[in-house]
Amino acid sequence: MLALYCDDNRQVALQELPAPQPAPGEALIRVTLAGICGTDLQILRGYHDFKGVMGHEFVGVVAGPPGSSWLGKRVVGEINVSCGDCDLCRLGMPRHCRTRRVIGIKDRDGAFATYLTLPEANLLAVPLQVEDEAAVFTEPLAAALAAVDAARLPRKSPVLVVGDGRLGLLISWALALSEAQVHLVGHHAEHLSLAEPYGVATFLEKDLPPGDYAAVVETSGAAAGLDLALARVRPTGTVIMKSTYVEPYPLDSANLVVPEVRLIGSRCGPLGPALRLLARGLINHRALIDRRFPLSQGLEALERAQRPGVLKVLLDCGRQPGD
Amino acid sequence: MLALYCDDNRQVALQELPAPQPAPGEALIRVTLAGICGTDLQILRGYHDFKGVMGHEFVGVVAGPPGSSWLGKRVVGEINVSCGDCDLCRLGMPRHCRTRRVIGIKDRDGAFATYLTLPEANLLAVPLQVEDEAAVFTEPLAAALAAVDAARLPRKSPVLVVGDGRLGLLISWALALSEAQVHLVGHHAEHLSLAEPYGVATFLEKDLPPGDYAAVVETSGAAAGLDLALARVRPTGTVIMKSTYVEPYPLDSANLVVPEVRLIGSRCGPLGPALRLLARGLINHRALIDRRFPLSQGLEALERAQRPGVLKVLLDCGRQPGD
Repeated sequence: MLALYCDDNRQVALQELPAPQPAPGEALIRVTLAGICGTDLQILRGYHDFKGVMGHEFVGVVAGPPGSSWLGKRVVGEINVSCGDCDLCRLGMPRHCRTRRVIGIKDRDGAFATYLTLPEANLLAVPLQVEDEAAVFTEPLAAALAAVDAARLPRKSPVLVVGDGRLGLLISWALALSEAQVHLVGHHAEHLSLAEPYGVATFLEKDLPPGDYAAVVETSGAAAGLDLALARVRPTGTVIMKSTYVEPYPLDSANLVVPEVRLIGSRCGPLGPALRLLARGLINHRALIDRRFPLSQGLEALERAQRPGVLKVLLDCGRQPGD
Repeated sequence: MLALYCDDNRQVALQELPAPQPAPGEALIRVTLAGICGTDLQILRGYHDFKGVMGHEFVGVVAGPPGSSWLGKRVVGEINVSCGDCDLCRLGMPRHCRTRRVIGIKDRDGAFATYLTLPEANLLAVPLQVEDEAAVFTEPLAAALAAVDAARLPRKSPVLVVGDGRLGLLISWALALSEAQVHLVGHHAEHLSLAEPYGVATFLEKDLPPGDYAAVVETSGAAAGLDLALARVRPTGTVIMKSTYVEPYPLDSANLVVPEVRLIGSRCGPLGPALRLLARGLINHRALIDRRFPLSQGLEALERAQRPGVLKVLLDCGRQPGD
């Protein structure tokens, strides 16, 4: 099968690999569509120490093993593969499993390939009304919803979302759908405009009015975004950190201790609620798609996804050259 | 009156100043005993931008104005002077008042002096059974209790306190008194031994057993303390930051985002519960006292308080040379 493979030296190449064999309890999934995420780009920049098939955002169709009750079903999948047995799994935190592997991120092959394997327990069937181009957003939308939950929404005062990229838009939409007042600040007028139909008040950074916020969600991926978040969070307020930065962030401890601010990391969330939200047709996923590339043009796709201001780049993993 | 005064250039000197005049609604307090705190030492190192009489930990006796119902009462006082009218005061956060002044820390003269003024609304009467040497710990104990509250105690698993200084000891004692299992890690065997009667398990850093903690309270005042806290907090766990550091802390964002850790700043707390705890006689305040100096030897006292490993240094503000 064709796969986008990242080697020890963070060199990515299209490779012909044998199709993976599902272990007992696992399904073989033929990937239909996959999404390129900021984490994939960070892997290329050396942020993670990953070797293998890249990719974790996907929708596909179960193609094996023979006899599986999932055969032929259209699915998305929980990307963390957990042991079910360690203290954290037993405490109900399987996404923090002590020995977790994460497809395309940590110790397990991912979805930028013709085929992928995952434990059947990780699969969720995609409802008919959710098209592939929507279903491929299940994982990032789940992460957005987790950030919304972590923000412990104040109802009476607006929440500030910093960053108008894919995740910033998804989070501001999800916040708005949960009845929050949302302010979104970013650098791209054409992205900001995508939030306005949701009732989100949008601002270029230079136009953000003065004042502070009980909750700020930082999605910008840039240290300047966390600077802004910490400058604008109200005393005793919460900053949700969705972004990671390649360089250490120079944290002024007084910015947390004196105003008694809460800085909360948020990584991913449960897929079910995200899939239900997509099924309600309330997420304008098409507006988030920049371009689709066939998997055979995966390197061009990665290159495009790295350009500033580019929204979601998708890989058609089912489409072969000449299809 | 005599006062320890910090000027524009962070030079501290003993000065003869006129006694302060209480504004309407304020009391004049004759200071009996005052404590030197890490914040005072940070002011000398340029951490805050404070000019005025230093000091915020105190116990004293109300000496004016004539006719005050507080006259002659032994008191401690809330150190934040708030407006009562801004949005944060109205939201019940007077310690975060938009225009707050803080005695000895921010825009208001402090307690290292013969006299101090404070709004009567800030005063708390000290119960008879609380001696001056205990009452002077009300403010730091209140800060310790706030950190305990912020840690949202897990009952089933131990809490780690990093740092065996004054605050680390107070916090570990307060945690133990609230039925938590407490591990305290530090560098001074003689300090660690003060926590053992409270049932706290104590460790020199090199002996801390492996494992992680649902909650860690960092009190060390050193970046290495936060390194340890972040290394030892469990995924989805909480790190309470009590310390501030003069230099920016190089935060690896992945240490918050990937394990979804909560980093929560904590500064100060309400005095009432601290005073009640002192009245119950459960805080071994005498063990925390390193030495008492008369105010006239305030510079020597500050010097001593800066030595590594020194616990609480007190100033006898009521005792005059030759008393």
